[in-house]
Amino acid sequence: MARYDFASDNTAPAAPEAMEAIVAANTGFTSGYGTDQVSAKAADLVRELLDADAEVRFVASGTAANAVSLAALCRPFEAVLAHEHAHICTDETGAPGFFGQGLGLIRLPGASGRIDPAALAAPLAAPDVSYRQPPAALSLTNATEYGTVYTAEQLAALIAPVKAHGYGVHLDGARLANAAASGFDLKAIKGLGVDILVIGGTKAGMPPTEAVAIFDRGLARRFDARLKQAGQLPSKGRFYAAPFIGMLAGHALFRHAEHANAMARRLAAAMPFPVTHPVEANGVFVEMDDARLAALHAQGWFAYRFLDGSVRFMCSWATTEAAVDEIAEALVKLA
Amino acid sequence: MARYDFASDNTAPAAPEAMEAIVAANTGFTSGYGTDQVSAKAADLVRELLDADAEVRFVASGTAANAVSLAALCRPFEAVLAHEHAHICTDETGAPGFFGQGLGLIRLPGASGRIDPAALAAPLAAPDVSYRQPPAALSLTNATEYGTVYTAEQLAALIAPVKAHGYGVHLDGARLANAAASGFDLKAIKGLGVDILVIGGTKAGMPPTEAVAIFDRGLARRFDARLKQAGQLPSKGRFYAAPFIGMLAGHALFRHAEHANAMARRLAAAMPFPVTHPVEANGVFVEMDDARLAALHAQGWFAYRFLDGSVRFMCSWATTEAAVDEIAEALVKLA
Amino acid sequence: MARYDFASDNTAPAAPEAMEAIVAANTGFTSGYGTDQVSAKAADLVRELLDADAEVRFVASGTAANAVSLAALCRPFEAVLAHEHAHICTDETGAPGFFGQGLGLIRLPGASGRIDPAALAAPLAAPDVSYRQPPAALSLTNATEYGTVYTAEQLAALIAPVKAHGYGVHLDGARLANAAASGFDLKAIKGLGVDILVIGGTKAGMPPTEAVAIFDRGLARRFDARLKQAGQLPSKGRFYAAPFIGMLAGHALFRHAEHANAMARRLAAAMPFPVTHPVEANGVFVEMDDARLAALHAQGWFAYRFLDGSVRFMCSWATTEAAVDEIAEALVKLA
Amino acid sequence: MARYDFASDNTAPAAPEAMEAIVAANTGFTSGYGTDQVSAKAADLVRELLDADAEVRFVASGTAANAVSLAALCRPFEAVLAHEHAHICTDETGAPGFFGQGLGLIRLPGASGRIDPAALAAPLAAPDVSYRQPPAALSLTNATEYGTVYTAEQLAALIAPVKAHGYGVHLDGARLANAAASGFDLKAIKGLGVDILVIGGTKAGMPPTEAVAIFDRGLARRFDARLKQAGQLPSKGRFYAAPFIGMLAGHALFRHAEHANAMARRLAAAMPFPVTHPVEANGVFVEMDDARLAALHAQGWFAYRFLDGSVRFMCSWATTEAAVDEIAEALVKLA
Repeated sequence: MARYDFASDNTAPAAPEAMEAIVAANTGFTSGYGTDQVSAKAADLVRELLDADAEVRFVASGTAANAVSLAALCRPFEAVLAHEHAHICTDETGAPGFFGQGLGLIRLPGASGRIDPAALAAPLAAPDVSYRQPPAALSLTNATEYGTVYTAEQLAALIAPVKAHGYGVHLDGARLANAAASGFDLKAIKGLGVDILVIGGTKAGMPPTEAVAIFDRGLARRFDARLKQAGQLPSKGRFYAAPFIGMLAGHALFRHAEHANAMARRLAAAMPFPVTHPVEANGVFVEMDDARLAALHAQGWFAYRFLDGSVRFMCSWATTEAAVDEIAEALVKLA
Repeated sequence: MARYDFASDNTAPAAPEAMEAIVAANTGFTSGYGTDQVSAKAADLVRELLDADAEVRFVASGTAANAVSLAALCRPFEAVLAHEHAHICTDETGAPGFFGQGLGLIRLPGASGRIDPAALAAPLAAPDVSYRQPPAALSLTNATEYGTVYTAEQLAALIAPVKAHGYGVHLDGARLANAAASGFDLKAIKGLGVDILVIGGTKAGMPPTEAVAIFDRGLARRFDARLKQAGQLPSKGRFYAAPFIGMLAGHALFRHAEHANAMARRLAAAMPFPVTHPVEANGVFVEMDDARLAALHAQGWFAYRFLDGSVRFMCSWATTEAAVDEIAEALVKLA
Repeated sequence: MARYDFASDNTAPAAPEAMEAIVAANTGFTSGYGTDQVSAKAADLVRELLDADAEVRFVASGTAANAVSLAALCRPFEAVLAHEHAHICTDETGAPGFFGQGLGLIRLPGASGRIDPAALAAPLAAPDVSYRQPPAALSLTNATEYGTVYTAEQLAALIAPVKAHGYGVHLDGARLANAAASGFDLKAIKGLGVDILVIGGTKAGMPPTEAVAIFDRGLARRFDARLKQAGQLPSKGRFYAAPFIGMLAGHALFRHAEHANAMARRLAAAMPFPVTHPVEANGVFVEMDDARLAALHAQGWFAYRFLDGSVRFMCSWATTEAAVDEIAEALVKLA
Repeated sequence: MARYDFASDNTAPAAPEAMEAIVAANTGFTSGYGTDQVSAKAADLVRELLDADAEVRFVASGTAANAVSLAALCRPFEAVLAHEHAHICTDETGAPGFFGQGLGLIRLPGASGRIDPAALAAPLAAPDVSYRQPPAALSLTNATEYGTVYTAEQLAALIAPVKAHGYGVHLDGARLANAAASGFDLKAIKGLGVDILVIGGTKAGMPPTEAVAIFDRGLARRFDARLKQAGQLPSKGRFYAAPFIGMLAGHALFRHAEHANAMARRLAAAMPFPVTHPVEANGVFVEMDDARLAALHAQGWFAYRFLDGSVRFMCSWATTEAAVDEIAEALVKLA
């Protein structure tokens, strides 16, 4: 039997709090395109979460949320600074270039998914020349693709030189809940200089939905038209907003993220293979050869070799202790 | 109290069959990006519905479904033939041009939302010149924006000359269920030369989801990459697929559409204002002056002046007889 | 023998002053991408011509010059207000949408190519709604496509309400020299609120080159990168700049344009067919049936039926009195 | 005094044969948009040069020629395989992504500008996954960016596996004349499977012009509309075509390229710094530290540090033996 428990954090079903909120919101007629009261309430909850007076929208797709945000920060002949293994660089089929009409990506190195601050210096210092796309924005990801978590101080250190050039900042929070559960203070974001933040719903245990928080309200002008043109303004907005109500109203978002993180720690603790990145969120990365990975697949467990060559195991709100113990046992036998 | 019952057919909640199917599908871990079993089963049901061996995908947005389809049929320096009041021309914020990098729209006239076959002749006969965007595809809408329904014969008459030029055909079926409930045979589509069909979920009573049926399998090559880049390939595909299972498995889609159509007929029958288009689906269009429309709004009833100057009243699966009678009474008093 | 004398004003060869300047500039090694001294000198002459401190670039194509300019003024989910028969709307293969990633065109009516000021009111007054592309810029053309010339006052009346909304203004001056020769004061442009001006070289008698004058210097930021990405930043910039030196240094531009205008007046005076638009620049538009147009073509004279149904005859710097008299004689015989 | 002689091969003026041909073509009225007899004759000469029945167009810009070609071979969700230091990857401001609406670039390594055949294997073997842009075309450059020249056999070895996948092939021939002068047989191209070839005019000693030869005539459908929309279809086509007539009719193209190559060999022979790449065309790359490069600049000689860290010296048709000896002397003093 195929087991997708650890293949990704989007293989899980939606959490009960999210589903109940959708069912609860599914009553009566409402106005369309995000102007409904459910969307308004969810936006209020997001603002409360961030302790910030941001514009908030709910969209269907994290890929689109990121790409639309970058297109709002950069023109086609400009580029985004990002970690070379950031989702926008490696796993979104070039969506930033599609939504941004060819905008460039400047890929930066850095251990365990965090951009090396020293690597920022060169592209920021490079003089504008007409034949290269100069940077216009920085994209950060927290928690990172490697299951590590930036501190607010680390983000500030990356953002400061970018802001000094007048460039924009995007934060991909597909796993922001996991970062928060790991100690990252969401209320600190507003002071960091982030212009647009994407708060992941899907990987956090919701049906497809992502919140976009626009801190720089100048960027929000005509944002609904931007979303509509991009196929990201739902006529029935409550279906994207309600899950956030269900997950934020009673803090389920963080309980579930803390559970996912705890499952990752439990798996790491039992892991017989060398762990390659600090386990600070909901992912465990290990060194494993092809033969052993194939043997694991043969037993029905899906896990993927990641960009740095590690094999990745992801936990989610729905990962059970039993499943962790089961795969750990399988791994121990393989090791 | 604001009443959105007749403002659009996307102001309604989702139908119970759709919601139950989502809840039922929300169990266990599955593979991502539309490769799950729920998506496979829903695709089978769509193929059965159409009696056709089409590729089927489920996406979040009708605007995106249309725009992605047109971008698959046309290159940026080509154009789509469409009714001048088609949704793609008037209500999607230029999404076809965004997804299609500037592809053009050739706007054609025609009574009550149906393209006048005679109007097709000129753009098809025009010689290619380098400084104009020549047609490469025809976009049709059934039911139309004016609540009328093309017969298969009428569609065939429009498609034949287009196919004779080797051009593609897109069918926007945002309200295909209403057309079917009005007698349009969905199994006839496969014989008409339609290359890509969008089957509306949202307006038919589902949470946000649309099915894209690709009859021309050559067009389907790398379609998942196309969708992913466009932010329309959901990681949790079951949430877009399940509503179609719930609505197709027991024919709820058509029962609900027939109800919506019946409500429109009921409203038309009681309507004290001149009805401007044949009531063949779920919309009623009437001649009404600004003062009376304002008075209606003042009573809380939302209805909008449409592109041809008519005022539009839309019914949905959730429209009740009581609501019809209530607004009819209000209208009679205003008339 | 085919006669293209009146088919367009781009069928003419380049004027001797332009050619001599190219030959003169073709000496020695220079720096690339518009940083050379020839480009600098030509830019100075353009600024002098306009009596304005604008950024000036030289590009290969009027289509690209217009489209790049509009893309600098509008975002993809916004639209440009333009005359329905403006070159950008009808003769550039959708280039604004290509360069502007789907930006919209709001087509406005108006007699003889001038936008009717009353027609501007509705799109400017329309509330922003998410599903339509709201205006963000106005595009004007002087001389117009119908050979008429806006006065500065007429332009000011169109620009004022647009600027009151904070929108941008583009002036397509493909035939600006003809407008100037007709009395339009180029030094008035800087006071009108034009943000980007395209000064036509090709139709004015130069080899392929157009000057782009950016009055709003904020728009000029990274404009070279914008041009380079768009394939409009020549490595050998002097070849686009030199013709402007040759044509501006000794006022040849205006002498030639005045000649073209005079030839149009001469043709109009001899014209046996009803002239349909005031002859204020270098074009003559007449009412002529298909049979007579075909007969004219059969004699080798190319002239085209234009968008409003008129037949268009264009004069250029190279049109001779003899040619005017010759075609006039042919026309008289046909009438 | 600033000396650009070796800064690039586009710092030179145009060769007399090109200029004379432009002057000769600048007579009489002609039809527009590349339909003139000068364009037709130049296209014939290009076909003769290639001994191939290709469609031929003349455009203003090499950047645009490349980007338009790649957009014809790939869809936005696909990618182009190219050398990591190819001009399209590093020096065209992301033009492929702009013209191709986000099409991807898969950067491949290889010594001295030639793609390592082994490096092609991995991207060609990778299974299509929805979240990555799969390859759809190969872009080659001859002569390469490092002044080396692929043999026909080397190109064939790279093209064969690409064609086996049904993908397209683009050849950037910005310095094709230098390759030909170095022994590369232009008549062999037609047998190699190249779909679109760009033949550089500018770097070969012409005013701005590039020839695009479309071997796959299916790709040529509506190519004029593609070019017009992209701002690359000149109304006065003879100005882009004539230089090719002047340079091809009497083989001046190859005489000049052979001279440029000979100047590079002369410079290499006198070069006191280690030469880092084989000198097979018109460039010389050397190892030189920053202090010495700065000292060279201080003497007025422009030369640039290239992507691999070498300092590049380019020769052109206009490079004199005296200039080579002069800079060689300066370099010897610095070494």
